[in-house]
Amino acid sequence: MYNTGMLKFRCIKDQYGHLTPIEATNDIPFEVKRIYYITNVESNVTRGFHSHKKLHQVLICVNGSVKIRLKIPNDQSTVELNDKSEGLYIGPMVWREMYDFSEGAVLLVLASEHYDENDYIRNYDFYVNEAKKTFDDESDI
Amino acid sequence: MYNTGMLKFRCIKDQYGHLTPIEATNDIPFEVKRIYYITNVESNVTRGFHSHKKLHQVLICVNGSVKIRLKIPNDQSTVELNDKSEGLYIGPMVWREMYDFSEGAVLLVLASEHYDENDYIRNYDFYVNEAKKTFDDESDI
Repeated sequence: MYNTGMLKFRCIKDQYGHLTPIEATNDIPFEVKRIYYITNVESNVTRGFHSHKKLHQVLICVNGSVKIRLKIPNDQSTVELNDKSEGLYIGPMVWREMYDFSEGAVLLVLASEHYDENDYIRNYDFYVNEAKKTFDDESDI
Repeated sequence: MYNTGMLKFRCIKDQYGHLTPIEATNDIPFEVKRIYYITNVESNVTRGFHSHKKLHQVLICVNGSVKIRLKIPNDQSTVELNDKSEGLYIGPMVWREMYDFSEGAVLLVLASEHYDENDYIRNYDFYVNEAKKTFDDESDI
């Protein structure tokens, strides 16, 4: 789907456990200026409900599982994250909703910029209008 | 202890769960060029057993708990990480060993540089000699 994709990370497994390294700008396509993790989400909760104007992110479920619903004006898809060696890349102008967090789920997010409230679009109708404009502009190129 | 310290992160708690943001260079004292996470460690395993020459790291246990043994030539301490809003900063020339990983423990590490095998010191006797030189040099300043 537009501006999204799955990344596969190397996972080093031996008798001492598993280690999954992610080198910024090599294993993911941006410098990491912000890291956050979401935990303690009840199974009946859906969160997210926003798009970013310019931010790039990679979402990794490092414990348990979670589902991500992605939307653009004429398409949508759902991804289940349940493998710590997989990352979901989400670029600009993609609406996301996170739900079905399992007991103990930990969703790690790596982001390309520091927090900026002005980069969020939190109204879905406004998002659709802006996204259509973005996609129309890009289809003109 | 020399070149170590605890960091406390803000944790945003509401009815949608907990979100812990870490802004690189603001909430931690370096840019993040590498992220890794350690999982699936059996309870009887100890790992680490190295120092870095120049690397800065922050260790955060985002699920479960783990103990970290820190050593410098004339001091040692043990830290239990069991709170996702706390980070253990470890700077250069500190020996570390990680053990007592709980079932499901996830140890997230944020590092100041990309992977560089030349930055590791993996022999303890060599480490002690190098560390003594480092500390002697610094006490001369």
